Amino acid sequence: MKSILLAVTFVFFALSVLAQVKVNEKRIEQRIFELAEFGKNEKGEGQRVAYSQGDIAGRAYFMDLMRKAGLEVHIDFAGNIVGKRAGKDPSKKPIAFGSHIDMVPNGGNYDGAYGSITALEIIEVLNENKIITDHPLEVIIFQNEEGGLVGSRAMTGNLKKEALSQKSASGLTIAEGIKAIGGNPDRLDEVIRKNGDLAAFLEIHIEQSKVLEKQGIDVAIVEGIVGIDDWDITVIGMANHAGSTPMNDRQDALIAASKLVIAVNEVVNSYEGTQVGSVGKITVPSGAPNIIPGKVEMSLQMRDLSEEKIKKMFADVEKRAEQIAKETNTEIKFENLNLASTPTMASREIQDKMVQAAESFGISYISMQSGAGHDVQEMAKLGPIGLVFIPSKDGISHNPKEYSSPSEMAKGANIMLNTVLLLDKSLTLKLK
Amino acid sequence: MKSILLAVTFVFFALSVLAQVKVNEKRIEQRIFELAEFGKNEKGEGQRVAYSQGDIAGRAYFMDLMRKAGLEVHIDFAGNIVGKRAGKDPSKKPIAFGSHIDMVPNGGNYDGAYGSITALEIIEVLNENKIITDHPLEVIIFQNEEGGLVGSRAMTGNLKKEALSQKSASGLTIAEGIKAIGGNPDRLDEVIRKNGDLAAFLEIHIEQSKVLEKQGIDVAIVEGIVGIDDWDITVIGMANHAGSTPMNDRQDALIAASKLVIAVNEVVNSYEGTQVGSVGKITVPSGAPNIIPGKVEMSLQMRDLSEEKIKKMFADVEKRAEQIAKETNTEIKFENLNLASTPTMASREIQDKMVQAAESFGISYISMQSGAGHDVQEMAKLGPIGLVFIPSKDGISHNPKEYSSPSEMAKGANIMLNTVLLLDKSLTLKLK
Repeated sequence: MKSILLAVTFVFFALSVLAQVKVNEKRIEQRIFELAEFGKNEKGEGQRVAYSQGDIAGRAYFMDLMRKAGLEVHIDFAGNIVGKRAGKDPSKKPIAFGSHIDMVPNGGNYDGAYGSITALEIIEVLNENKIITDHPLEVIIFQNEEGGLVGSRAMTGNLKKEALSQKSASGLTIAEGIKAIGGNPDRLDEVIRKNGDLAAFLEIHIEQSKVLEKQGIDVAIVEGIVGIDDWDITVIGMANHAGSTPMNDRQDALIAASKLVIAVNEVVNSYEGTQVGSVGKITVPSGAPNIIPGKVEMSLQMRDLSEEKIKKMFADVEKRAEQIAKETNTEIKFENLNLASTPTMASREIQDKMVQAAESFGISYISMQSGAGHDVQEMAKLGPIGLVFIPSKDGISHNPKEYSSPSEMAKGANIMLNTVLLLDKSLTLKLK
Repeated sequence: MKSILLAVTFVFFALSVLAQVKVNEKRIEQRIFELAEFGKNEKGEGQRVAYSQGDIAGRAYFMDLMRKAGLEVHIDFAGNIVGKRAGKDPSKKPIAFGSHIDMVPNGGNYDGAYGSITALEIIEVLNENKIITDHPLEVIIFQNEEGGLVGSRAMTGNLKKEALSQKSASGLTIAEGIKAIGGNPDRLDEVIRKNGDLAAFLEIHIEQSKVLEKQGIDVAIVEGIVGIDDWDITVIGMANHAGSTPMNDRQDALIAASKLVIAVNEVVNSYEGTQVGSVGKITVPSGAPNIIPGKVEMSLQMRDLSEEKIKKMFADVEKRAEQIAKETNTEIKFENLNLASTPTMASREIQDKMVQAAESFGISYISMQSGAGHDVQEMAKLGPIGLVFIPSKDGISHNPKEYSSPSEMAKGANIMLNTVLLLDKSLTLKLK
């Protein structure tokens, strides 16, 4: 009897929280505009690549906001910004959320920035509503997401030593960049967290595609982040004089390669689902109009939530390549680049809470996979994760034309805020 | 009655000449070996590009042979070597023949060299047989054929002023090169000959393909040298994230380009004849494995003896491109490069004489078009032309592995020698 009463009380409490707390749409948009000023050049383009002056100034602005929101802020040795808010129960692991504020060169004002501002918004609303969660909370702003999830990889121990000497878009090496933003590349080991250190990690991001916009849906609750596998393909034919070699006596590597480009497309489209596959790069080394291509080099990249499906598709592509090589009297070789990232699944429980939050606000949603990588996928090594997408106007991203409307941003942020509250009260939340 | 007697006497004379004069197979091969020594590097590769030390030394060797054969030798202002032999009738225009001795970098010992040595061999055999032709004869060794028919273009007034400042494979500009080999780039106007200045020009060359070898035929009597037309093709799609863009929402310029490469091949193969068409060059500017190609640039080159057929094929390609652009939601643009060279037909009468010569020696022959360019095509502006091909082992050319056997070379040279004699006695030989 007592347990039933408790459960009923809990449900009422949960519903009352959902009915009460809402993000401030205007504040979110205002902060998008304010943050956009950092790194903006004379043409009004965003040039806030990691470790640049714009990035450093933007980080200072953001840390200031975090401190004003009462967070206990520090820069970890990897250069990530971490803001902590104590919970009622210090024995519980933190629920963390965040994104990044660095940009690609000539980037947009929503990719990363929106998720970072939403993370801060959650804290602002909790403050305004005097809500103290049971779990401690953390806002994490990862450094150099665009350079390859550098900050989040450092936090999971997944940033290779070799990466430190690589040049970033700023011109600095990663190690120099880490120093420039207040980290210490010699102490990265101390930044590493382990599986179980987070009760959950949540991120919200612009979709970077136009599925939501086309379908007129408010948000996507992400099932998982796709795995990626990459190959280099070499087609060997026979270079020859394009004038004196009869059509029926050619071993044209480009004709074979062209058939393979089309075959890749057909194979990927032959499966049910949202898998993708692309040939993004092709060259004929020393190609000339008057020489029959003797060699073609090209890339192949395939992505899906299922590693097995990627393997099956690749086997199909290999089979097609074998036929094409025979037909065209060429040789086709595949080299796996060993860059494969495995698919990362979002927590089923967190997705359910997101659905619950969306329904309580009357926000329309669909399930989707993320074809792009995000910091949240690294965080999956530390605990259960969740990811939400909001519409990107015209699907545009990595471009100054990025845009999401204030109401779109508020809907997504309300889901994030209330998912945090639902998770905080959840008795079932389990570590991965 | 008198005219019949004259004709019968002529036929007997012609047959007796054919029965008597034959080239010296051993001398031809010996000279191939000797000339190959000039420009040979320590690895044994031929590096006799025009204007190089090897080219200059090879020219000196060859001029020495020409003088020893009694020719009156001079270097014209364009740097061509011209060796003259007087005829019985100084009012007749010269019958000229020759080729080139320059090579592509890392070239072979037969391309050009064989035709040059054969031209000299004709003179040697006439000397040995004490034959004085009615027409004056000229042996012409054109300079820098491989750099774009430079010497022969100068002789027809078709060498553009701008070409003089272009770098040749030797590192020298064309103007510097002309000086280095004894010409004078300021006096090129004096080199120009006009239509009617030659009674005929003949060239013999290796086939640079394996049609003769495959069919087991001794020589090809060339009908004409193909015209060439060149286009740049640009395919415009939409660059996008290769992870987050669904397969059904892509405008992949490389898929369109691949379909077009195949369409070009299908169109060219759909015609009867020996026309060729190739896409030799393709690039995705700033291509990357994770970006859907937004733009593809590629070349298109088509060759045939009929300009009309080239035009028809291009119209077909354009029609296919239109369909492909529609299917793939891309734009396909063609730009004609205005490099078109028109087809050059060999003289019907000279071809007939070559057939007559071949048949009298029991040499097997086929008719063929030349897909590659040769100096003889420029000479067509000055008079009727003829061109013979002999087999290239494995179709290899522009490569140290070039090879034609001594007997193959002798057969071709016998046709050349006897065609000169037949033409010399021909009463019908008319200017173009």
